[in-house]
Amino acid sequence: LIEALRAVVPETGGVLVEASDRQPYETGWRYGRGVARAVVRPQTTEQVADVLRLCHERGVRVHAIGGNTGLVGASNPDATGEQVVVALERLRRTIDIDPVDRTVLVDGGVLLSQLNAALAEHGLVFPIDLGADPQIGGMVVTNTGGTSLLKYGDVRHNLLGLEVVLADGTVVSQLSPLRKNNTGLDLKQVFVGTSGALGVVTRAVLQVVPLPRQRATALVAAADGAAVLALLQGLERSVGSALTVFEAIHGEAYRATLRHGANLQDPFRGAVPTYTVLVELTSTLDAAQLDLEELLQNALVAHVEAGAEGIDDVLMDPKGLGWALRHQISESLRHEGTVLGLDLSVPRSRLAAFSAAARDLVQARFPFATVCDFGHWGDGGTHLNVVWREADVPEGFHDGGPEGLKHAMQDALCELCVAQFGGSFSAEHGVGPHNQRFYDRYVDGPTQRVMAALRAALDPTGAWK
Amino acid sequence: LIEALRAVVPETGGVLVEASDRQPYETGWRYGRGVARAVVRPQTTEQVADVLRLCHERGVRVHAIGGNTGLVGASNPDATGEQVVVALERLRRTIDIDPVDRTVLVDGGVLLSQLNAALAEHGLVFPIDLGADPQIGGMVVTNTGGTSLLKYGDVRHNLLGLEVVLADGTVVSQLSPLRKNNTGLDLKQVFVGTSGALGVVTRAVLQVVPLPRQRATALVAAADGAAVLALLQGLERSVGSALTVFEAIHGEAYRATLRHGANLQDPFRGAVPTYTVLVELTSTLDAAQLDLEELLQNALVAHVEAGAEGIDDVLMDPKGLGWALRHQISESLRHEGTVLGLDLSVPRSRLAAFSAAARDLVQARFPFATVCDFGHWGDGGTHLNVVWREADVPEGFHDGGPEGLKHAMQDALCELCVAQFGGSFSAEHGVGPHNQRFYDRYVDGPTQRVMAALRAALDPTGAWK
Repeated sequence: LIEALRAVVPETGGVLVEASDRQPYETGWRYGRGVARAVVRPQTTEQVADVLRLCHERGVRVHAIGGNTGLVGASNPDATGEQVVVALERLRRTIDIDPVDRTVLVDGGVLLSQLNAALAEHGLVFPIDLGADPQIGGMVVTNTGGTSLLKYGDVRHNLLGLEVVLADGTVVSQLSPLRKNNTGLDLKQVFVGTSGALGVVTRAVLQVVPLPRQRATALVAAADGAAVLALLQGLERSVGSALTVFEAIHGEAYRATLRHGANLQDPFRGAVPTYTVLVELTSTLDAAQLDLEELLQNALVAHVEAGAEGIDDVLMDPKGLGWALRHQISESLRHEGTVLGLDLSVPRSRLAAFSAAARDLVQARFPFATVCDFGHWGDGGTHLNVVWREADVPEGFHDGGPEGLKHAMQDALCELCVAQFGGSFSAEHGVGPHNQRFYDRYVDGPTQRVMAALRAALDPTGAWK
Repeated sequence: LIEALRAVVPETGGVLVEASDRQPYETGWRYGRGVARAVVRPQTTEQVADVLRLCHERGVRVHAIGGNTGLVGASNPDATGEQVVVALERLRRTIDIDPVDRTVLVDGGVLLSQLNAALAEHGLVFPIDLGADPQIGGMVVTNTGGTSLLKYGDVRHNLLGLEVVLADGTVVSQLSPLRKNNTGLDLKQVFVGTSGALGVVTRAVLQVVPLPRQRATALVAAADGAAVLALLQGLERSVGSALTVFEAIHGEAYRATLRHGANLQDPFRGAVPTYTVLVELTSTLDAAQLDLEELLQNALVAHVEAGAEGIDDVLMDPKGLGWALRHQISESLRHEGTVLGLDLSVPRSRLAAFSAAARDLVQARFPFATVCDFGHWGDGGTHLNVVWREADVPEGFHDGGPEGLKHAMQDALCELCVAQFGGSFSAEHGVGPHNQRFYDRYVDGPTQRVMAALRAALDPTGAWK
């Protein structure tokens, strides 16, 4: 097999078999660990197709890896040592920008940062903003959302064309940049968000947007979740599509981040709001046409003067204190103790009630733990982190083994989210070993049945993954 | 069968069998004509499910009809007289608006105009803008685009949840208003744009947006298609997301409309531009914050002063002369003679070249005919109309029967569009009897194969349609 793979990908480093060479592909950025039989690094769609065909013919299972930034354990191979890992990082030759079309044809292995550097030369940007630096192919199969979904939508909203290699090596090439094309089934939609289960994305055509010329940021101290939602609704009415980011950080997460983060200033100087709301406006207009700083300040003042309840403080934040804090939350929580990180969403209007209910649940059933949530209140997504010190865990809670406590919490909070609040157990991280059981439990029958039909049609021998 | 249907939908007028009662459902608004065995008008999802189950059990084919505004002959039953038509017009009870969530749960039979009237009370709008008044369910299955796709996207971009009844009466209910939900296959995507071939849409959850507070419109006289595209690119950079409509009307269409339209003023007073560009900005900001009229005028002046070629005239159009003209094109062309109306799209940057090539083709092969195109240059869509007087058609062109000439033109222009310009034979009208042969010819194998697999999974006995 290894020789056959080397014949297909003959370039230096095209096939890795040594343990030390394989290791970076076997271990996730934060979670995930497995063993690969070999790691193959193709440079072209044809090589990807040849590798998949070869493995398919021999009944060898394959596992694709992009930027290895996933958070559900799906980036890495399983523990069997049988899977061939197909790493897409060398599929990085093409970034073809058409400024008149406002689109770009890009290879699946290109990093988001590389794409945006190339686009910036044309005054353009691919407007999916997130903390990691994933590959474009990985972003498509996980339908990445990020912090500015409110304004720009997710990857699906910005995807025009796609090239995918199926398990048997068939190349499905639909690389048209058409914005209007209603000729029946839009096949690319079935690959978006299915975590690569139906094929490997080798190229994509994306719609991109003009780079903003202005940005204005503010921090708002809110006394409760209801005040956060009222502010959201007020700003959408007053500043409209300039509203790009609307995040809220709970006081527990805020406090932990100030304790452990590096080079942070405390914007509210000691007062810890129940929720700290990070608001950002962007515009392609220059300040002479529309002063965003003034627009945002006026909108916030007007909201308070109109009698909004629960707004305790408003600060313009030109130095980005809020963003600095926001970016250090996840790492800071790890310094507090053990962290269970859940990526949930509920209907936007129910987020305040859901956060309160989650807090009540943890207080009642796991009183040694603290809920430290922060999230994208503009789109209903919340990173619900539960944090505790192992020393505080009473006897009995660890009876279910080392993962038993985490699983019990995860089960209880996902049940609350999905069954009681009509929410999602995976807002933007996708499905992988870490949350597969919730897929089995909560995804409806017709969806599972259609997914099985698609797999039967696109991967008839089940060789894939 | 009729009795059994009456038992399921017992309300007055629930089942229509008289020829005069069936007739409005058998004949399209502009195209399409067939014969129905009966017309059933259910009022609830349960009734729709019962009707479909009943027909499924008896092997009776069904055909759903929404607002009957389709343009590809797909709204009406076929000529066999065997199909039961399911009309959704009484499925019109629910318009549940959640202003905090900025979403609405709506029955499939609700008209776009009804939905927007209800939303306006909350300062909201469903931002799909088009000439007809379709039902929401029909808009979902045809993935309607319209004139402001540039800013708001198509129906798919604004669809959060869906309820569909499958051929056997199974109800697939995914009515969640979640904006972030990446738990594998997004099943609703396979129903969008497939013209109802996989099920009947009974309810939908839509994302809606704040009503604009301002609107500014201008008309620009452009000497050629290249000037139109340069203006588009310039405006996207200068006014960004305020740009909502960017349409261009060719001189031939413009001239015909002035000849036949009612109560029209000629904005350019006799001069007929090669392309008349209709530009519209909208904003939720009020004029004190951002004067749109001024912004648009300044942007157009700056574009010309920066040396743009081929811009012959610029007029602000506060009275809507351009829109009045735009809305009367299709009907006006009919007064000129026989019309072949094609709904095509190409990559946006190739629209100028495509329009020129289409003109050359018609001139060379059908010199008695005139191309009168107008379209959504902002998204690459063009309504390419070919117009001629039957008296001018030379001998021999009608040898292929009454539809032969139209078919020959349609074949040649679709081939030019799809094969040479990477375009679509149906930008926004969907697939129906009028263009089914292009589906068979141009839609790629994998898409047709997956569609067959989906039909096998969702409609195993093929009773549907």
